[in-house]
Amino acid sequence: MAQEKNIRLDLAYDGTKYHGWQRQKNEPSIQGILEDKIETMTGSPVNLIASGRTDAGVHALNQVCHFKTTSLISPEVFQRGLNALLPQDIHIHQSEQVSPDFHARYSAKSKTYEYRILNREHPDVFQRSYCWHLTRPLDIKTMTACLTLVQGKHDFSSFKSTGSANRNPVRQLFRAALATSEDGMLRFLFEADGFLRHMVRNLVGTIVEAGLGDLDTLDFQEILFARDRRKAGIKAPPQGLFLRDVKY
Amino acid sequence: MAQEKNIRLDLAYDGTKYHGWQRQKNEPSIQGILEDKIETMTGSPVNLIASGRTDAGVHALNQVCHFKTTSLISPEVFQRGLNALLPQDIHIHQSEQVSPDFHARYSAKSKTYEYRILNREHPDVFQRSYCWHLTRPLDIKTMTACLTLVQGKHDFSSFKSTGSANRNPVRQLFRAALATSEDGMLRFLFEADGFLRHMVRNLVGTIVEAGLGDLDTLDFQEILFARDRRKAGIKAPPQGLFLRDVKY
Repeated sequence: MAQEKNIRLDLAYDGTKYHGWQRQKNEPSIQGILEDKIETMTGSPVNLIASGRTDAGVHALNQVCHFKTTSLISPEVFQRGLNALLPQDIHIHQSEQVSPDFHARYSAKSKTYEYRILNREHPDVFQRSYCWHLTRPLDIKTMTACLTLVQGKHDFSSFKSTGSANRNPVRQLFRAALATSEDGMLRFLFEADGFLRHMVRNLVGTIVEAGLGDLDTLDFQEILFARDRRKAGIKAPPQGLFLRDVKY
Repeated sequence: MAQEKNIRLDLAYDGTKYHGWQRQKNEPSIQGILEDKIETMTGSPVNLIASGRTDAGVHALNQVCHFKTTSLISPEVFQRGLNALLPQDIHIHQSEQVSPDFHARYSAKSKTYEYRILNREHPDVFQRSYCWHLTRPLDIKTMTACLTLVQGKHDFSSFKSTGSANRNPVRQLFRAALATSEDGMLRFLFEADGFLRHMVRNLVGTIVEAGLGDLDTLDFQEILFARDRRKAGIKAPPQGLFLRDVKY
């Protein structure tokens, strides 16, 4: 039997038309289409594992995944072949053979998410699937103060998904920052050792409530310390969210 | 009878899903959808005139159009109402009542087009409908030299549409410039008193051939002076083209 190889793929995707990373029975997904195209190349089904699942409508600037195969196809040919087979909204920008114990999810040291808000009167027709458009002015100082509060190691139960399982809700947030630009686009950056489901979108939604003046920074701190999902604010919509980077 | 008003609309659109500006019988067009929504508001059909027609897949950062109406609806209400009725890929960012002799096309002093080329190995999945992706390196100096040559008043017959009517092919190009950026995106800017059909795309396609080394600047000058469409190079694809500005 041929030796099993572990292949790592680094890719970008526009999540607009997909029901998220995870394979679905009757809906298009990133995992589903990638697994199908790999099977087209190798002739055998594969199990593709990503650094983390992204939800419907969420994008990736850099996602990392891996799969095991006994195929003799080289990583370079996988990359070229898959890019030729994939639709234009998914692109593999790197492919390499990695050690057998490399695991896209468990080996990850940190992940970085970016969340984009367009804060100005007029929408940008070209960014409509890539940001959350908010017309009411957001207070940058208040939001930056909230970001400072969430940095470090915390129980993020207040910002987890309402339906999520009861696993360890403690995460270390290495970086929580906000960059502004002249055209009104705000970019929130969150780097952590891991994220709870919907954590970035719940954090951004609650920080936006502070930015609108509906909460102050003390309220925000109380929500964080409450460790209770019911205390937090709204969940920001998916199209502003980008998986930006995974470090190993 | 109520007094007839002349209403000017300034708008942006993502041309990806449309068969261009001009109303079509069985295909979606920017003019068609706008005229339909204005009729929804006023109850009467209108004739909407733009600064110029854009082709299928071509975008507008700022297009200007006007229509005459006896409706009592104010320009501000037109803007808000139309934005509520229009799909998210068309947005009116200004609306005003103008003098009866304002004509979006005939009153224009200059128009500016932008053409975007992504010149690097990997495509950008988020820019796939907004640029021409070319992997072979383009020589910036040669292309800039070509741009210098086309500035000024010329007979642009070499760069007109193959099927276009035989009207005056002389245009004054006030500005022809190229801006580069670190991510590999090249932005060509053309400002002129008017453009022949497909002129920007034919110019860019031919300048790209020079950038690839298939033509030199002397060849390019000969093509310009030949005033013969058959001499010029390929036509750049539509999705990289943006109507950027109209001056009155």
